[in-house]
Amino acid sequence: VKEARSARVLRATIEYDGTRYRGWQSQVNARTVQGALYHAVRPVLGEGTRIFGAGRTDAGVHAFGQVASLALERSIPAAEVPRLRRDLNDRLPPDVHVLALAPAPAGFHARHDAALRIYRYRLSRRRTAFGKPWVWWIKDPLDAAAMRRAAALVVGRHDFSSFCENPAGHESTLVEVAWAKVTTPAAVPDLILVRIAASHYLWKMVRRIVGTLVEVGAGRWNAEKVAGLLATPSTEPARVTAPPSGLFLEAVLYEGDPPPPEIDPLRPGF
Amino acid sequence: VKEARSARVLRATIEYDGTRYRGWQSQVNARTVQGALYHAVRPVLGEGTRIFGAGRTDAGVHAFGQVASLALERSIPAAEVPRLRRDLNDRLPPDVHVLALAPAPAGFHARHDAALRIYRYRLSRRRTAFGKPWVWWIKDPLDAAAMRRAAALVVGRHDFSSFCENPAGHESTLVEVAWAKVTTPAAVPDLILVRIAASHYLWKMVRRIVGTLVEVGAGRWNAEKVAGLLATPSTEPARVTAPPSGLFLEAVLYEGDPPPPEIDPLRPGF
Repeated sequence: VKEARSARVLRATIEYDGTRYRGWQSQVNARTVQGALYHAVRPVLGEGTRIFGAGRTDAGVHAFGQVASLALERSIPAAEVPRLRRDLNDRLPPDVHVLALAPAPAGFHARHDAALRIYRYRLSRRRTAFGKPWVWWIKDPLDAAAMRRAAALVVGRHDFSSFCENPAGHESTLVEVAWAKVTTPAAVPDLILVRIAASHYLWKMVRRIVGTLVEVGAGRWNAEKVAGLLATPSTEPARVTAPPSGLFLEAVLYEGDPPPPEIDPLRPGF
Repeated sequence: VKEARSARVLRATIEYDGTRYRGWQSQVNARTVQGALYHAVRPVLGEGTRIFGAGRTDAGVHAFGQVASLALERSIPAAEVPRLRRDLNDRLPPDVHVLALAPAPAGFHARHDAALRIYRYRLSRRRTAFGKPWVWWIKDPLDAAAMRRAAALVVGRHDFSSFCENPAGHESTLVEVAWAKVTTPAAVPDLILVRIAASHYLWKMVRRIVGTLVEVGAGRWNAEKVAGLLATPSTEPARVTAPPSGLFLEAVLYEGDPPPPEIDPLRPGF
């Protein structure tokens, strides 16, 4: 592929600590990640720049690899893009960081074009003075094998109404989950990672799946209960919502992308 | 050594994220780490319990291994100590954590008896969305070898008046630095660790040594300047004070203690 010499759209890969933000999406009178980006981008790229994020993460949710498209007012030389990334990071607050910035094909739209969104949820039984903003501390012993078996049930195409905050607000409640993994990295005792990949999600779906898996891991629910939630949508909704602190938008993939790099289970700390 | 069956003094090893605290030492109308400990300890161990910390860390300074002695109103059975640690952690805010709690010999005093205090300072040229509270971001390229040579100059017994906020407030400004190390851990690009061990320190001494080493690393000062600051105390004080965010009280050692465990250079995150 020949490298474009100029770009009208940029693809930004962004990490953020969502603790201090009311989520991704710009809101009046609320600090948001998209708002912080607009604040940094407009003086550099012009007031008419538009920003579209792949994942509308909720308040307190973090990202290792959010992707946003920056639709520019006019083309800029591709050679300027590296300097531009440094300029943006100089203007961004310390908890938002542009990891990569690259020219994108004309018409690229981070939200519409996303093929796969991968979320990571961090559960831990280990209390530390540094980890609380990025984990859900669980006191109960958790049976990771039982959680793994329950996670396998959500893979595939299902009506996820039972796992959605407001099913009526969605065009369709059918979602295909590509994979769901429960892992216990050897390097970090007492940490359980839940990772889920799907083309898209319903509101609070990941956190309700994780909440359900924790019920199973703690032995309060069994696999039949999970199967029932999937088979009989919303008559008995899964009202267990994992807190936002443990949730990270890990990566967003587009057609033609290579597989994403592995993210260290230690990140962003214990 | 025979294990004591009961204890009148406990030795607590404590980690904390100092970001939200006005330092270790209890103050009226200010959130402090010692104050948070008193708040957790008194309902469990009695109002008359007294807490003494080995290091009076300043506002914003962190700890991986602060040591405090808890002088109790009356003896408690040694068998109750593990449960007690859990009770304390349940009552502490999430950014303060008791790592270990053990019976100590009668009369043990964490501050008076400390033989060696080890501090760690984290310098980084790498911006991340998660690391800012625990690092000093430096934009200049730093020459770690030059910093290492300059660090060697502070080892030994010197008058550190030039590196002290208020030399007149100290009984003596002579301090013996046991060792000072500058390392660049292979696992973390762009991270430089400065570690210093001494029996005690003057006010802001570690942060002024680090500030000086950064001047040397950036090429603005040379080794002669550092030697001069040590040879001719306080006529030309080192007014470069590294910010508190990068500083951690790593360990405190007492007579008879084994060497402290290595602390992962990745901690508490990038």
